[in-house]
Amino acid sequence: MSDQKRPVVIIVGAGFGGLSAARALASAEVDIVLVDQRNHHIFQPLLYQVATASLSPADIAGPVRSILSSQPNVTVVLGTVTGIDSATRSVSIDNGVRSGAIAYDYLILATGARHAYFGNDHWEPYAPGLKTIEDATSIRRRLLWAFERAEMATDIAERDANLTIVIVGGGPTGVELAGSIIELARAALAKDFRRIDPRKARVLLVEAGPRILPSFTPELSEAAKQSLEKLGVSVRVDARVMNCDAEGVVIGEERVPAATILWAAGVQASPAAGWLGAAADRAGRVLVGPDFSVPGHEGVFAIGDTASLTDAAGQLVPGVAPAAKQAGRYVGDLITRRLSGFPQQAPFRYRNYGNLATIGRYAAVADFGWIRLRGALAWWLWGIAHIFFLIDFRNRVAVTLGWLWSFLTFKRGARLITGMLRTPGK
Amino acid sequence: MSDQKRPVVIIVGAGFGGLSAARALASAEVDIVLVDQRNHHIFQPLLYQVATASLSPADIAGPVRSILSSQPNVTVVLGTVTGIDSATRSVSIDNGVRSGAIAYDYLILATGARHAYFGNDHWEPYAPGLKTIEDATSIRRRLLWAFERAEMATDIAERDANLTIVIVGGGPTGVELAGSIIELARAALAKDFRRIDPRKARVLLVEAGPRILPSFTPELSEAAKQSLEKLGVSVRVDARVMNCDAEGVVIGEERVPAATILWAAGVQASPAAGWLGAAADRAGRVLVGPDFSVPGHEGVFAIGDTASLTDAAGQLVPGVAPAAKQAGRYVGDLITRRLSGFPQQAPFRYRNYGNLATIGRYAAVADFGWIRLRGALAWWLWGIAHIFFLIDFRNRVAVTLGWLWSFLTFKRGARLITGMLRTPGK
Repeated sequence: MSDQKRPVVIIVGAGFGGLSAARALASAEVDIVLVDQRNHHIFQPLLYQVATASLSPADIAGPVRSILSSQPNVTVVLGTVTGIDSATRSVSIDNGVRSGAIAYDYLILATGARHAYFGNDHWEPYAPGLKTIEDATSIRRRLLWAFERAEMATDIAERDANLTIVIVGGGPTGVELAGSIIELARAALAKDFRRIDPRKARVLLVEAGPRILPSFTPELSEAAKQSLEKLGVSVRVDARVMNCDAEGVVIGEERVPAATILWAAGVQASPAAGWLGAAADRAGRVLVGPDFSVPGHEGVFAIGDTASLTDAAGQLVPGVAPAAKQAGRYVGDLITRRLSGFPQQAPFRYRNYGNLATIGRYAAVADFGWIRLRGALAWWLWGIAHIFFLIDFRNRVAVTLGWLWSFLTFKRGARLITGMLRTPGK
Repeated sequence: MSDQKRPVVIIVGAGFGGLSAARALASAEVDIVLVDQRNHHIFQPLLYQVATASLSPADIAGPVRSILSSQPNVTVVLGTVTGIDSATRSVSIDNGVRSGAIAYDYLILATGARHAYFGNDHWEPYAPGLKTIEDATSIRRRLLWAFERAEMATDIAERDANLTIVIVGGGPTGVELAGSIIELARAALAKDFRRIDPRKARVLLVEAGPRILPSFTPELSEAAKQSLEKLGVSVRVDARVMNCDAEGVVIGEERVPAATILWAAGVQASPAAGWLGAAADRAGRVLVGPDFSVPGHEGVFAIGDTASLTDAAGQLVPGVAPAAKQAGRYVGDLITRRLSGFPQQAPFRYRNYGNLATIGRYAAVADFGWIRLRGALAWWLWGIAHIFFLIDFRNRVAVTLGWLWSFLTFKRGARLITGMLRTPGK
């Protein structure tokens, strides 16, 4: 076997889906090429804690090479995909040093999504979203700088605008950001300024739909809203953002002066559908078959946030980490079985083990289908689950200690303004 | 007393000297304004571990506001000093948001130093130095990228240049960088690449003088050299760097192709002397009186790396953290005493508690004057001393755990290439 040319599986993206596919192929007789733009995998569900100065980037990230170093059939390539030719079965990759094409037998696209501005991309400089480590440290800088600017402000309007943070989008990321930021202002920063009272910061959570956390039950949405309001967040539902600029946002017809606007409102899939010329939904997700295969492109699969699939149970597979992991494992197993001569595999079924979202100290909501929780118990569950699913032992220890320290001291462990240089901008 | 205008002490710089001066003035009847360009204090002696992917930035840094939040007579101002008028006693500050002048009764300049290229500032883009968090993450990116480039190299010369790291300067920073980088290559990265063997990386430590660690005894210098060579570092003494460019360095008459060049060769004081028009030595350090006062500038002191002083015992005060702390405390006490009507204070005497430098696992040198150590005992002492002097409890726990993990697994906890974006350069 070792003298024969083994089939090549290219996996694009080292997120939850891509890594899970690579691992599922660990004992397959294939050569895997894992391509990512970055050298590290990110544990996305905790990225908002990097943005709000609780955790360090390395606490929630690990080098892809190191994660897969004991799997000899994987080669990691750093680079950006610039195109796919599914007729000749090759992927073009560029990384600023080299560009070239790699031939594949199987291709798994797990390239994730970016935030979307629904046709208003010019809002991005004013209302950044949160998908990468760089996004997180940039948001951290903006947030911390806003308090510094407020401290220096010479008039009340300027001070108040700097103490106003607007979060657009009431999904889990928006809710978690809002809770974490109000706690940053009310606890961690409370005593550190001389001219302002950071506790007077306003945090607005704006949701265009009728309720926040729409993927939860209405009762849990309401509980989350009440928890946020108790912490001091203003929650506005049925509220549409009409404009974002350097001065603030326009919500409906009201202009809200705000120095910090964070975008957690929507996602747009990576350009994978465009590379293939494949059919996609409005958010750019590739419309895949029941086994994640891309119709008309032999040997090509799209998983995770890159794909749109209604599973065998009639359920739309959600764009969450557990779904991406399950999809990666499914496709990895499918390829392993095909190579072993077992081409049949049952269509994919998403198993929903539950939804969790945290709000603040002792406040979270959990929906396991058979039981729904809120408050302290949900909060403990959220913490334990996230520690459990973290990348490796080091991350688990680092995050546990970071949380323990913050829990006991009410401080934030990573309150650094970096990349600021001489003339800090926003 | 509270109705009277209290004297204003401006401290510029939140390094070891500035923080120590602020703390020494904690119970003085003064208003302290602490000015720094950044929001965080850095524990400089461990900065090289951020550059070599062992520790996260937040592990060795803490927000200045938080460090001093329980000292009510301190106001922290984020900004860059643009000038000093010692006739009218005011400091001009700019931070990109505001600019203005603050009047002082006493002024303490603790602005530190940058690395110096001895008239070859055009080398800086090719041979960066290490003074800030941004320097450290930028060096980390260069180092890790060089291995990625080597993996992608299409010819042997390109591969070898990417696997060659040259460190210029054999002081403690150069020695510590060299030891840490060779261990990164030989242990942490060893199994993570498929086309290259990272263990074959060459690390060159180049020192213009006759021995490395010139502030230690010749015996300890020799022991350090042997330890480095045992780890695999090539140590070159009496070797002068004639040029640095994108291709590598010229050492004496030999051109060494190298993708990574790190500069640890010299320091240049911050422009404090220039702000004042005060006399300075060749490295730009203000020539201060025996109590750190700047001659001809009433009420102005310069401490730490900003000052040049031969103390009452005839000893040149070195540019190290303990000396800066002692100077800060001395000047803080001096001002406190003056305000209490005790103008006399004995001239400053630097107390040298010892010199420590680490090389690698179980390898370090220590010189306490009365006893000199090398090897494992010195290494343990180095670690314990650095943990002890770290900023706060959180940093101590984070660094201890980071080290413990690296010690047990031979891995690096912060192996992230960040700020890389689409087209990574060097």
